[in-house]
Amino acid sequence: HKPMRFKVTAMSQSKSHWASINEDLVTHLKHSIPIRPPLVVFEPMHHLTFAAPETTAPALCIAACELVGGRREEAMAAASALHLIHAAYYAHEHLPLTDRARPKPKINHAFGPNIELLTGDGLVPFGFELLARSNDLTAQDNSDKILRVITEIARAAGPQGVIDGQYCNFLYTQSNWKDSSQVEMIKRVSEKKEGELHACAAACGAIVGGGSEEEIEKLRKYGLYVGMIKGMLYGIGRNYEKCLVKEEVDKLRTLALNELRDFNNGVELEAISSLVEAELCNA
Amino acid sequence: HKPMRFKVTAMSQSKSHWASINEDLVTHLKHSIPIRPPLVVFEPMHHLTFAAPETTAPALCIAACELVGGRREEAMAAASALHLIHAAYYAHEHLPLTDRARPKPKINHAFGPNIELLTGDGLVPFGFELLARSNDLTAQDNSDKILRVITEIARAAGPQGVIDGQYCNFLYTQSNWKDSSQVEMIKRVSEKKEGELHACAAACGAIVGGGSEEEIEKLRKYGLYVGMIKGMLYGIGRNYEKCLVKEEVDKLRTLALNELRDFNNGVELEAISSLVEAELCNA
Repeated sequence: HKPMRFKVTAMSQSKSHWASINEDLVTHLKHSIPIRPPLVVFEPMHHLTFAAPETTAPALCIAACELVGGRREEAMAAASALHLIHAAYYAHEHLPLTDRARPKPKINHAFGPNIELLTGDGLVPFGFELLARSNDLTAQDNSDKILRVITEIARAAGPQGVIDGQYCNFLYTQSNWKDSSQVEMIKRVSEKKEGELHACAAACGAIVGGGSEEEIEKLRKYGLYVGMIKGMLYGIGRNYEKCLVKEEVDKLRTLALNELRDFNNGVELEAISSLVEAELCNA
Repeated sequence: HKPMRFKVTAMSQSKSHWASINEDLVTHLKHSIPIRPPLVVFEPMHHLTFAAPETTAPALCIAACELVGGRREEAMAAASALHLIHAAYYAHEHLPLTDRARPKPKINHAFGPNIELLTGDGLVPFGFELLARSNDLTAQDNSDKILRVITEIARAAGPQGVIDGQYCNFLYTQSNWKDSSQVEMIKRVSEKKEGELHACAAACGAIVGGGSEEEIEKLRKYGLYVGMIKGMLYGIGRNYEKCLVKEEVDKLRTLALNELRDFNNGVELEAISSLVEAELCNA
């Protein structure tokens, strides 16, 4: 069965493509956040940056940049900022506050809550600093592109994006939802949390990679669907029966792949589309 | 006593100058953070933006812009971002975490800790978004200036600025300092917290107002000294005898006024220098 074998090869190529993207990203982050004085600040920063579980948004940003013909390093600052914001919010989501139940799953805290709160507060501006300074690293002036990316990331990370999703998530855990509205709530939280972040990540990758406005918008939508699938399967949706959201996930997968129809650069396209294919294998 | 009367008039002119700056800033912030859907997000955002006590950094940013010949509205986005970051950190400083004593002074919490944590997290990217978007509001392309201001504000708000100061403050409250090192610690925390923020505020005002590099650096130093005085008198230093820091404050005041020597635009200079003069009246 030759076609089958080709499929397997493509899948494993995609896997190694993602692995190489993530490796480069980690190298870049380690370089950007060295353990340097003041140690009392940079040690917890370094630790919490890598303590957060990997999220696909930064890698998607890089993959989208490559898909539109950009070079990997052009997306590195935006991908790093996205990871730092994710790490900051992850730390804050797991803070023991007096008015909420101990976060689950229980995670290992290397530092006290006060330091983790402060470190999260430090990671966000640090991400924007990396991004704003990235203009000085290139020969040409990209300030317009970078300002656009800052606007995109700030909006997705802010009160109309991830923060809105976290509010909804919080309200959700406080109330009892009937079965009929449960899927809607899971969908809404996933759209705002993982969805907005992945949409922004893919759009930013396309922006820095020099994609056309049409490509940027297609990749934004692709990212939105990818993020929503992630949220519905592994985010807020992870505590529910997979069959509850299966129908929605199937619809989103079709919508996602539709957005990629007009792209046709072999390896990059295989890699990026494998994001939603792999999801479904697990579901 | 004519000179005396002139002095009084100048002081009251300065007062009304600051009052008008702060009034314009509040108007701008109210306009930028309307109470709009999602209400569950924007109501606490609006509330916490104005619940934080007034700080002089945003007003100093506007005054520095005017001092170098810029127009007030050119500094409005930077001043707003500075205020939003201050408001976010103020909310986070007063969160009841399980591992720290109840913050003092006790403040009135309109929302639960979880919402206040999230709202603080939302205010910071929102500030960067306002700033990044401000380029679209003007006829000319200021993207280079705005990127520079974003870098400045992100650095001052991050792990090498205010966050470093907050870490030190936290360590400070956990240990016993001997009298001899107490002043040094108060000085260090004030330098990092209020100092860096005011330095950045004044520098950013000068940048957006079109000041020369020399003017930017003079105003940055002026801001640093102003902020340090604030911190030593009303920040971490407020719990100590004023006489403990009086000598340092006197030195800083002289250094501060020295930086203003080469500026000579009447009303604006009176206003900006009144910041350190008023401090000493209260001390």
